Amino acid sequence: MKVVAEDLYGKHLAILERALAACRTRDSWSAFTDHVTPEARQAGAEAFQARLGRPFDLDQPGVPVPQEDEVSPYTGECLGVSYPAAGPGALMEAAARAWPAWRDAHPRTRVGVCLEICARIHARAAEFAAATMHTAGQSHGMSLAGSGSNALDRGVEAVAMAYAAMERVPERARWTREFGTAAVTLDKRYRVMPRGIAVVIACASFPAWNAYPAILASLATGNPVVLKPHPTSVLQMALAVGACREVLAENGFPPDLVTLAVDSAARPIARHLVGHPLTRIVDFTGSAAFGSWVEANAFPALAYTETSGVNAVLVDSLTEPGPVLRALAGSLCLFSAQMCTSPQNIYVPRRGVPTAGGLLTPEEFAYALGEAIKAISGVPRRAAAVLAAVQSPGTLTLLDQLRGQAAGRGKIVVEPEAYPHPEYPAARTSGPLLALVDVADHDLYGQERFGPAAFVITADDSGQALARAASDAAAHGAITAFAYSTREDFLDRAEDAYAVAGAAITSNLTGPMPLNFSAAYSDYHVTGLNPAGNASLTDDSFVTGRFRVTQSRRPAPR
Amino acid sequence: MKVVAEDLYGKHLAILERALAACRTRDSWSAFTDHVTPEARQAGAEAFQARLGRPFDLDQPGVPVPQEDEVSPYTGECLGVSYPAAGPGALMEAAARAWPAWRDAHPRTRVGVCLEICARIHARAAEFAAATMHTAGQSHGMSLAGSGSNALDRGVEAVAMAYAAMERVPERARWTREFGTAAVTLDKRYRVMPRGIAVVIACASFPAWNAYPAILASLATGNPVVLKPHPTSVLQMALAVGACREVLAENGFPPDLVTLAVDSAARPIARHLVGHPLTRIVDFTGSAAFGSWVEANAFPALAYTETSGVNAVLVDSLTEPGPVLRALAGSLCLFSAQMCTSPQNIYVPRRGVPTAGGLLTPEEFAYALGEAIKAISGVPRRAAAVLAAVQSPGTLTLLDQLRGQAAGRGKIVVEPEAYPHPEYPAARTSGPLLALVDVADHDLYGQERFGPAAFVITADDSGQALARAASDAAAHGAITAFAYSTREDFLDRAEDAYAVAGAAITSNLTGPMPLNFSAAYSDYHVTGLNPAGNASLTDDSFVTGRFRVTQSRRPAPR
Repeated sequence: MKVVAEDLYGKHLAILERALAACRTRDSWSAFTDHVTPEARQAGAEAFQARLGRPFDLDQPGVPVPQEDEVSPYTGECLGVSYPAAGPGALMEAAARAWPAWRDAHPRTRVGVCLEICARIHARAAEFAAATMHTAGQSHGMSLAGSGSNALDRGVEAVAMAYAAMERVPERARWTREFGTAAVTLDKRYRVMPRGIAVVIACASFPAWNAYPAILASLATGNPVVLKPHPTSVLQMALAVGACREVLAENGFPPDLVTLAVDSAARPIARHLVGHPLTRIVDFTGSAAFGSWVEANAFPALAYTETSGVNAVLVDSLTEPGPVLRALAGSLCLFSAQMCTSPQNIYVPRRGVPTAGGLLTPEEFAYALGEAIKAISGVPRRAAAVLAAVQSPGTLTLLDQLRGQAAGRGKIVVEPEAYPHPEYPAARTSGPLLALVDVADHDLYGQERFGPAAFVITADDSGQALARAASDAAAHGAITAFAYSTREDFLDRAEDAYAVAGAAITSNLTGPMPLNFSAAYSDYHVTGLNPAGNASLTDDSFVTGRFRVTQSRRPAPR
Repeated sequence: MKVVAEDLYGKHLAILERALAACRTRDSWSAFTDHVTPEARQAGAEAFQARLGRPFDLDQPGVPVPQEDEVSPYTGECLGVSYPAAGPGALMEAAARAWPAWRDAHPRTRVGVCLEICARIHARAAEFAAATMHTAGQSHGMSLAGSGSNALDRGVEAVAMAYAAMERVPERARWTREFGTAAVTLDKRYRVMPRGIAVVIACASFPAWNAYPAILASLATGNPVVLKPHPTSVLQMALAVGACREVLAENGFPPDLVTLAVDSAARPIARHLVGHPLTRIVDFTGSAAFGSWVEANAFPALAYTETSGVNAVLVDSLTEPGPVLRALAGSLCLFSAQMCTSPQNIYVPRRGVPTAGGLLTPEEFAYALGEAIKAISGVPRRAAAVLAAVQSPGTLTLLDQLRGQAAGRGKIVVEPEAYPHPEYPAARTSGPLLALVDVADHDLYGQERFGPAAFVITADDSGQALARAASDAAAHGAITAFAYSTREDFLDRAEDAYAVAGAAITSNLTGPMPLNFSAAYSDYHVTGLNPAGNASLTDDSFVTGRFRVTQSRRPAPR
């Protein structure tokens, strides 16, 4: 059977080598297209429809239970899919039984299987995208790109980094040294040994982007994976688990190397999985509060986390405001700012923003930004493509509360209003809330407000703005930052400050690329230097702890 | 000033490149000689003598306090050295103040400084060795080799691995991608950012071997270091801190990047250092009990630990017993088995050990091993060179307790008797205790008995012996294992079992190399797969977590 898997290594070697090169040079590359043909899109939609209201066949431990928490943000209807419900113990034991064959497989065999899983998922891109839309609430385009090809790229990147780390350990060495007058020659063997069972906890609104790298990094390095999706956003993850199990079984490995652990909002099991005595690795994506708990309590398991942050925009000085306002508006609207990279806090100097056409007061800047936002959120077809739907009803509740708080203090520049989705009348939607506040209103903006909410913050000057934003990043977490300035020295200072605060900073970007686009192979995602998470996609430390090295020595034959 | 440090990178580049090659091929290499001239030895001894009874000048925070716990195992006399006593807070604040210049230095600059520190320590090898002898109790030969050149090799290895990991992060990239019909080109900058202040806690009997890699891995990656030696074994570590500070200052960096934190047995400060809010990395070598506490409580700091284990020898079948018995005896005697790699539990089959000359019963084997031990421990000049001295009086107390327990259950084959040291009449010495027990006596042998104590354990057969030994390794920790068999299939099974249990196994080794010799660049030390520690010298995971990567992006100039 392993011959088949070894063929998979050869089959995907060109992609692996290109991915390795991209990780080194950090240039632009993707193994996957974002596009599907109309026929494929139709077939994917039909495959999705055929799964609704039925048991999802995974042939893993557990009896089918309807997932009542899983409701489409577009239709408001429960998908009605039943997933196998099994206790953490049963899944852990199944993983432990499946482990030895995978543990003892050659790393190249495992890497081949992992890359085949990526190809298999991509071959069903349209079906996965339909599942993403109706769980995460993303637009069809984002479901195909961000949650499809880009997420798979981050997965391939993790496989490549894991492969490189394992390849740096030689399989054998002959070693000779003099002791006194005699030479001793030893033959040494080194083995890459996986750490043990890995638990992956995925988030609700963008599960694939972090779960794929986590699953694949653990699998490639030889660890079984138990994947726990968010109870409101299961289907895409169930499809991924199905693809993993299918490829594993085809190649003679026990499919229980990857299982799905489904829970409900009423009866969560994440703590049981993290605390299970067999758990050795935890990858978590989700709230900062639970992420902190995972980091503090995963021991003896290793924890890799990505949570959330307060991402800032520093507007110091502009030549031409239009492109900047459009870029900011696009980023504030993109997937209703339900991304960990979405900006939230936009600082402007109290004296106004210098531009080629004169000073823009904070108020003028905020209202101009509001107009740019409404040019998206006020046009349903554009709004559907950019804002898409709101994953959780709780986000609207929080947005409403925040609106009340902000109205009492600052100025509401843009009211968060639902837009009518042209295709799904029942879609849960909201345009952004934009409020103009003062730097003193730190209780309003000094934490992450998940979802479509942003603040234009009047600071005394750009120095104060930078200090405040970098300090919030260090204290409360941040993943991205953005600066706009005509002064090189200000951009340099901002880059230095954010290098210490541990968030990626992008300066003076306008144009067609979404500001918070993060490119696999090129952009490190999360630094681990602030509370927005301790793991980075994909640095060496994301992969090197998932395996250990054992060795044996024997005298060389004379 | 930095020009000087950059010259250091060039000065040591040949060593760095040879070290990198050795890490890849894992062949035999050392950057340092074990030998000193008689003149240098004399000068070293005089330099050591000149430090006794006086303040140790480090010019760091703290007022000099005599270190009453530091007593020579050879003379029984307190060294009387006063070290600067400072609270953890003062040292942490000094490190924090010193950090920015080092953090912002180029990684190659830091690597050059680290390699210069190694060269500086080696240039004073004899003085360091005298300090090691009179704190750890090692022989002069081991103080020069194991605690000198070998320990520095492990340090250079850590620097090389850290360098390689940092070099894998490019400093800059130009990235171009199409968005719709427009191309976006970004210039990206990536920075290696150190994690923060590193606390290194060293052990009493072999401090340099783990402290050098820890200090140098953290320093090379940009982190300040606070080094806390064991209160009974300070002087070698104080000399090392002095060398670090000297080289840092010469190259324009604040010497407080490396400070010494001295405590006493009565007022330990390790928990305060580990729990200090500024601590980001902890390297610990010492007891399993405190190591477990460090692993569980270091968060949010990363913890790298090496503690202890129950190392086993599986005697299945032999051709010629003599060389095996001599090799085992040598390893049981080496530094009175005060090494984390020393074997303790020697399993033999109940039916006897097959040899070319017939079966050796367990009793015959044990008494023959006892004779081989006494051929070392009973000859003072050999004993002084091999057994050296016992670092802690507590080790003799525990040995005495164990002797009582073993006498009540099995047979004492060799009584643990002091030998008269030919040079130091007051030396604290003990030959090994060797007891013959049954596999059922797990309470006696199923834990680490630190110091010169070993068991010959009668098992039903070699399969049971392997299962017991591997299970103890997994449950209680083990770093090394040794197998002797004429059956290839038994050796293969033992290697497989220990790969899973996470200890290095050496088979059929006899001859001049000490069984538990661990070669820098070639032997991975500790796997992290069992309770003997979570860190490995030196795999990628030992270095990659000590720094993070931050990035900035700007549109490329048109």
